[in-house]
Amino acid sequence: MAFTAEQEALIISSWNEMKDDAASFALKFFLRLFEIIPSSAKRFSFLRDSDLSLEKNPKLKAHAMSVFVMTCESATQLRKTGKVSVANTTLKKLGATHFKAGITDVHFEVLKFALLETVKEAVPYMWSDELKDAWGIAYDHMVGAIKSQM
Amino acid sequence: MAFTAEQEALIISSWNEMKDDAASFALKFFLRLFEIIPSSAKRFSFLRDSDLSLEKNPKLKAHAMSVFVMTCESATQLRKTGKVSVANTTLKKLGATHFKAGITDVHFEVLKFALLETVKEAVPYMWSDELKDAWGIAYDHMVGAIKSQM
Repeated sequence: MAFTAEQEALIISSWNEMKDDAASFALKFFLRLFEIIPSSAKRFSFLRDSDLSLEKNPKLKAHAMSVFVMTCESATQLRKTGKVSVANTTLKKLGATHFKAGITDVHFEVLKFALLETVKEAVPYMWSDELKDAWGIAYDHMVGAIKSQM
Repeated sequence: MAFTAEQEALIISSWNEMKDDAASFALKFFLRLFEIIPSSAKRFSFLRDSDLSLEKNPKLKAHAMSVFVMTCESATQLRKTGKVSVANTTLKKLGATHFKAGITDVHFEVLKFALLETVKEAVPYMWSDELKDAWGIAYDHMVGAIKSQM
């Protein structure tokens, strides 16, 4: 399935709208995940081993931000080359970390739902089936690359 | 943890409010699950093997209804005896069916979220932390009984 320049543009433009408040959206994104799957919070080593509240944990925000950013990068790669390839060492590490944390297909599915809901809430005036599909496809390919190393 | 008569009353009274439209709420309940975990629809044999749309599938409604009704029964049992016991043969069958379908802890967690959201939407004028907790506790015990046979 070809990923078009229009689809890439939809993702990049909506992400640009969100960027200024990225830290706040990143937090909302993962709080939504924890609302749906409360047990998933315990799978993050940096949450288990920390006394900081979720809101103040810098690593949670960093993790959420990297999901957004990697999905954007995935869109660009898909448009350019039709596939997603993360630098090999990064991908191996990501695969290993997620495997060790016991992350399953269902977790990735719920995170996709949370991501799409977060974008929808962030840019309601841009929301459309096309925007949803573009984010969804880019996310699926990015996750596919991680799962290939799990 | 004691389950109080007030908690049981909260569940029964909210369910009584929903009963007249139970079929519609039952459908919304599972459509929400499928929105969050699209792959879970394939785990229902009666959905895999059917040409009917989700809306028209009588078995999906029946399954959703039984989650509501069993959670109500669970509340009554918890208040009366402090624990939940489903008739032994029923429980064995439920455990086996869910095990065979590959249902995991995460699925049960997401279904709880979908259940609570459905009740919240159905009776917004009754919604409170107490109502949420009561449904959540009754659901957890009901699921615990099923998982004990998986």
